[in-house]
Amino acid sequence: MTAVALPPSPRTRVRRVAELASYEQATVYAIVDAAFLCHIAFRDDKGSHCIPTACWRIDGHLYIHGSNGSRMLKQLVNDTDVCVTITHLDGLVLARSAFNHTMNYRSATVYGQFDKVSDIGQQHAAMDALMEKLAPGRLAQVRDGSAKEYAATTVLRIALDECAVKQRKGGPLDDAGDMAHVVWTGELPFTHGRGAAIADALNTSALPAYAAAWSTESA
Amino acid sequence: MTAVALPPSPRTRVRRVAELASYEQATVYAIVDAAFLCHIAFRDDKGSHCIPTACWRIDGHLYIHGSNGSRMLKQLVNDTDVCVTITHLDGLVLARSAFNHTMNYRSATVYGQFDKVSDIGQQHAAMDALMEKLAPGRLAQVRDGSAKEYAATTVLRIALDECAVKQRKGGPLDDAGDMAHVVWTGELPFTHGRGAAIADALNTSALPAYAAAWSTESA
Repeated sequence: MTAVALPPSPRTRVRRVAELASYEQATVYAIVDAAFLCHIAFRDDKGSHCIPTACWRIDGHLYIHGSNGSRMLKQLVNDTDVCVTITHLDGLVLARSAFNHTMNYRSATVYGQFDKVSDIGQQHAAMDALMEKLAPGRLAQVRDGSAKEYAATTVLRIALDECAVKQRKGGPLDDAGDMAHVVWTGELPFTHGRGAAIADALNTSALPAYAAAWSTESA
Repeated sequence: MTAVALPPSPRTRVRRVAELASYEQATVYAIVDAAFLCHIAFRDDKGSHCIPTACWRIDGHLYIHGSNGSRMLKQLVNDTDVCVTITHLDGLVLARSAFNHTMNYRSATVYGQFDKVSDIGQQHAAMDALMEKLAPGRLAQVRDGSAKEYAATTVLRIALDECAVKQRKGGPLDDAGDMAHVVWTGELPFTHGRGAAIADALNTSALPAYAAAWSTESA
């Protein structure tokens, strides 16, 4: 299979440590799909804002949602040049010299404009996809959204077209002149685990399969 | 002890779901100290940017650093209204109705301007504090930064004065009319764990105490 490349634009071309950059669609999608939230940079008359919000992907778009009253959502559809970033931090990288210390991470940055998902069918499909991401199979079990709830909710999407990935993995890269310096070198990894499902105090139902399978911890 | 409050400004006053907001200094500090990276929103002639970078705290300031050549660092000292956000995602919250699903999280947002740490002594102290955060005790073991390395590095800081915290914890809040709906409710938690230290292929030294103590996994 040929990898699909997203050609870098003037604002997605990584200049600093450019060998860590990637513009492959599959890499962008993998980073987005591994995330439950993104940070969105946008601007209004009070300055720049950096707001975290839940996100999910359908095909070539990243979706967000919120109340119709959200200041951010109202501003985003007017802003032609927002920036969305998702970052997974994977580890601290310990080198022989102080300044060669670094971190391992996977980061995707998306530029563009959000559009409102106005079609009711598309809005329902988008919200269904969010539920399917959070808890596969749960959609059939919950009380469905009412017409009033859908009407009070704005769904926005941004095309995953103008994207850049920057990521690093592996051990430290020391200067040749530092190799005789005696100090432990390696990586201190972060784990992205999931704990055992916690039933609510008011819960009266058996644990469903997706909740039983959630935990990554051994029993 | 009296809690120190950071009075909300027009841009840090949380309007949406305001009962989740906090303006306590200790809460801001705890969220910053638990993080190794932040996302920074700023603007240049290409639009808004949302860039992840390593961060750490000394007293009432959040610090970042990078190469003198970094476009972001050069822009940040010129930008009077940047926004820095740190978010920890703690869990998915599963309610009886689709629209009452939510997430548990801790998020701190800082507004203001970055200043360059120009004093050499302060620059060294700031970089030492970063190393102490990454690996307590390692500073005495690594090859120190050279004058050339320090000269090539820019350290910036922003005051933790104009901040807002938004956080949520606990189980779902269902509508009274949904309580008879039969479905499991509760929280699917994320864990913020650390795996076993991974020695580099070129490492020749014994594992130091801070690396041995890194992992949160049982052996």
